[in-house]
Amino acid sequence: MGSNCISEDSQETVDREVKKFFDSAPPLKNHPCISEKLKNFIEQNSQLSGNGTSCRKIVCVTSGGTTVPLEQRCVRYIDNFSSGHRGAASTEYFLKAGYAVIYLHRRGTCQPYCRSLPDDPLLECFEFTNEGNIQVQRSQCEAVRKAIMDHHAALAAGFLLKLPFTTIFEYLQLLQLIAISMRSLGPAAMFYLSAAVSDFYVPWDSMAEHKIQSASGPLDMSLAQVPKMLSVLRRDWAPMAFCISFKLETDPGILLEKASMALNKYKMHAVVANELSTRKEVVVVVTGSGNTCIRRDKSQAGSDVESPLIDLLADMHSAFARSFSAQV
Amino acid sequence: MGSNCISEDSQETVDREVKKFFDSAPPLKNHPCISEKLKNFIEQNSQLSGNGTSCRKIVCVTSGGTTVPLEQRCVRYIDNFSSGHRGAASTEYFLKAGYAVIYLHRRGTCQPYCRSLPDDPLLECFEFTNEGNIQVQRSQCEAVRKAIMDHHAALAAGFLLKLPFTTIFEYLQLLQLIAISMRSLGPAAMFYLSAAVSDFYVPWDSMAEHKIQSASGPLDMSLAQVPKMLSVLRRDWAPMAFCISFKLETDPGILLEKASMALNKYKMHAVVANELSTRKEVVVVVTGSGNTCIRRDKSQAGSDVESPLIDLLADMHSAFARSFSAQV
Repeated sequence: MGSNCISEDSQETVDREVKKFFDSAPPLKNHPCISEKLKNFIEQNSQLSGNGTSCRKIVCVTSGGTTVPLEQRCVRYIDNFSSGHRGAASTEYFLKAGYAVIYLHRRGTCQPYCRSLPDDPLLECFEFTNEGNIQVQRSQCEAVRKAIMDHHAALAAGFLLKLPFTTIFEYLQLLQLIAISMRSLGPAAMFYLSAAVSDFYVPWDSMAEHKIQSASGPLDMSLAQVPKMLSVLRRDWAPMAFCISFKLETDPGILLEKASMALNKYKMHAVVANELSTRKEVVVVVTGSGNTCIRRDKSQAGSDVESPLIDLLADMHSAFARSFSAQV
Repeated sequence: MGSNCISEDSQETVDREVKKFFDSAPPLKNHPCISEKLKNFIEQNSQLSGNGTSCRKIVCVTSGGTTVPLEQRCVRYIDNFSSGHRGAASTEYFLKAGYAVIYLHRRGTCQPYCRSLPDDPLLECFEFTNEGNIQVQRSQCEAVRKAIMDHHAALAAGFLLKLPFTTIFEYLQLLQLIAISMRSLGPAAMFYLSAAVSDFYVPWDSMAEHKIQSASGPLDMSLAQVPKMLSVLRRDWAPMAFCISFKLETDPGILLEKASMALNKYKMHAVVANELSTRKEVVVVVTGSGNTCIRRDKSQAGSDVESPLIDLLADMHSAFARSFSAQV
């Protein structure tokens, strides 16, 4: 009874902080247009296909880091580093596994099917011929073909919807919009939250309007904690969905403990634990029934740790969805 | 006498702060390789050309924003926003005006001749044909051709050297290296400092090694001021060079005053004052002999404010170099 009281109290605190965060956020641009796109995408992919087989599962993959503006007319901001490589790779494997993917990504980060391209593909992959024509350099042919063809194919088939964000405000507003739009899917919806989300923010209304002046002395800043939206996602926005979050640490000594804490605190179905320096080789999937270590298949050149990871999560998701239909 | 004392005192303070900054910085990667590239580039462009005409002037254009890491194994950092558009455009006009350009730019920002491309050129400019070939979309042909041809041409001719940075530490270490390498050019060297440089930093050795934990409460941070390297550049690194710095503000009411203060304090030859919201239309060149307002030529579609700006600065630089040869 006592612990129940505490938990209700802290729920109220979270709700108050969430309200404060959204109240302080600048309004999302193109809100009606994004809602419309989402509605169409979800409708098209959740319809039974022509031959009567079951509808496509839909996953929202979040990717890249969010920024925290320090000034309203933004010159300076705090950024959470993430190349978006994990999210882009995972999107490819979810598509391969038959999912439709909403790719909620940081503007300018890695895109699906573009991971093997150089940083500046246009300048580094192309050359001009003596006849004045532009052609792909021979060594880059395969990477360029894959990027353009597979990417266009996924978009053209209507299996991939890309929504960009930059700030923490945009990210959480979009995540809320997506989650509420996906609610109708029940347990067929999945959230794969691999974005690197800021832990701290400056409330919009307490932010300097103009550029902070550096006239004298050090800069002292106090940042508020971003409310833990994972709880709100699970409880209010998408209570039936299968939810996976990520825990990234640089200190391996605390990684699994922190992942396990996140699993319990936010009631995730699984937490993918990864360490910064080895994240492309190995991850640990932490669940209520134990931990599974997933490694990249080193015997295959160019293989990704995301391949066995998505296989496992897709199986877990199927079992999760079946357990619901068994209940009904 | 009294004011002389104060100025010497403050010079000592600056020197101490500069030493502290560089001592605390992580070592620059590829230092010998970059030095070698710089040496060759400067030698090739400062030789008299075959027909005995005078050697090429060299300008170092800095572009994009620097980052300040908040953790040693960097997950979070403070970023100064800048697309790099100004530096990229200016580089094109400097090349057109006969300069060789060292383009010291933030990794991933706008590149010369690529300004009219969409954000994600490979995915947005190309399509595949029914025969399975890749081709440029008709509407993007001109932009893609310009990007690839003009960019390759400048590199192939040896008139453009691109050096990337990310952090404030890399930026200032590279700027010092470039300035010292260009010292032999005397007044034929120019610095065009359009990068958005962080005013504050966390000294490397006082930085958290691991990711800052967000366990409880707000985050309080205290950042030190980055020493004013413009003074050091003028006094020690490149005392004979022609130096242009930039002042960007969001508040037009303080812009010209701050530009004028910077001109005097750092002994620049000119300060380009620009306001965030109108910076592509108008800038004011602030010098000891007065201010010149430079506007984009609106009568010409696709014209840039950088075109008349670089014309003016190239003229000022020629007059500056002539005044030296007259003295000799």
